Amino acid sequence: MEKKRRSPAIIRRLPKYYRAICELAEITISRVSSQELGKLTGFNPSQIRQDLNSFGGFGQQGYGYNVKNLKENLEKILGLTEEKTMIVIGAGNLGKAIMRYSDFSENGFHIISAFDRDESKIGREIGGIEVRDIQELEEFLSENQVDIAVLTIHKDVAQKYTNICVEKGVQGFWNFAPKKLRVPKNVVVENMWLNESLYTLGYFLKDVKSGLEYSEDEMEDEE
Amino acid sequence: MEKKRRSPAIIRRLPKYYRAICELAEITISRVSSQELGKLTGFNPSQIRQDLNSFGGFGQQGYGYNVKNLKENLEKILGLTEEKTMIVIGAGNLGKAIMRYSDFSENGFHIISAFDRDESKIGREIGGIEVRDIQELEEFLSENQVDIAVLTIHKDVAQKYTNICVEKGVQGFWNFAPKKLRVPKNVVVENMWLNESLYTLGYFLKDVKSGLEYSEDEMEDEE
Repeated sequence: MEKKRRSPAIIRRLPKYYRAICELAEITISRVSSQELGKLTGFNPSQIRQDLNSFGGFGQQGYGYNVKNLKENLEKILGLTEEKTMIVIGAGNLGKAIMRYSDFSENGFHIISAFDRDESKIGREIGGIEVRDIQELEEFLSENQVDIAVLTIHKDVAQKYTNICVEKGVQGFWNFAPKKLRVPKNVVVENMWLNESLYTLGYFLKDVKSGLEYSEDEMEDEE
Repeated sequence: MEKKRRSPAIIRRLPKYYRAICELAEITISRVSSQELGKLTGFNPSQIRQDLNSFGGFGQQGYGYNVKNLKENLEKILGLTEEKTMIVIGAGNLGKAIMRYSDFSENGFHIISAFDRDESKIGREIGGIEVRDIQELEEFLSENQVDIAVLTIHKDVAQKYTNICVEKGVQGFWNFAPKKLRVPKNVVVENMWLNESLYTLGYFLKDVKSGLEYSEDEMEDEE
């Protein structure tokens, strides 16, 4: 597959297509049109066709998409078939929840260690993953290839541990700490900010309570 | 404040402005320009001015924004000063993490109960919140005013409990279950899908590993 720089907006739609196609595969539907995919994802069918075409086009006019085939192609595009190693920095409630979330490893995302500074946590196993002393982070990164660091620590120390990880070659950060991280251009950060999501919901809620209406597709709309 | 229907894109930027302004308030900075806000959020300064102007304009040409004032205004716009009641449906790891997250209640989001079907969890208290039998959900909703239901249950039952909540007048859903929910137009759903976020990161990671580069602001860009 050719490697080409794409708009983040397209990339953000791909997992949504993948989720929809997985739902169809689960109920053993074998064929889907872009119209049906549109209903399942909330995106415009022509947008969907255009996005998928840009990756090589997996559909056929008049037939639509073969579900199994499209699922496999999306897995390849998203790299779900490739093994990635992750560490969790901060074994608090959220960190623990992520360590116990089995779905990730099914798609190639393997958590190989967690780190915390709390002595009562160090040495414990959570979801089969050992919690190490945060002091050992640097050494661990020297000895193990880590693709993604999951940041579930306090925002005040998020940049500090990010810097250590970047220094040691970690190129991906899944950041739950409500802090904008500064990283070089060959490093990617995906922010997962619970507060922002809840505040957004709070705003929409005020609107619907005052009588305004939003369609479900519209709320998904990020343009 | 006038109540007007706005583009979800603007609404999604507001919590990001709020986060930045909170950071500035914390380090007791009293005044900020749209250029500086741009650096902190990754958005274009003219975009920021336009967004804030659309809510009444809290800045002054040549001066910028008063941090305390803008913070208070954003709190009002986002409704953070108003009390909202929430319930958590599904007291698994993620549900528990959310119940123990104290930041929410500081901004008016109060979790008043949790529900689970697991007998070993029912009756327990997590973060000071009682876990009730999911069978009691309907009755609880009849007796208590609930603004937001947090769905941290399995995707296969997410729609079922959403329907019960909607029936009982819940208008906001914070949905962690990887399932697109069907709701009426006077109900809002904010999806928080961990899988999609991680898959997106996986894609970007593949790109930077192959030598492509992304600026941090670009990855935030959802347009």
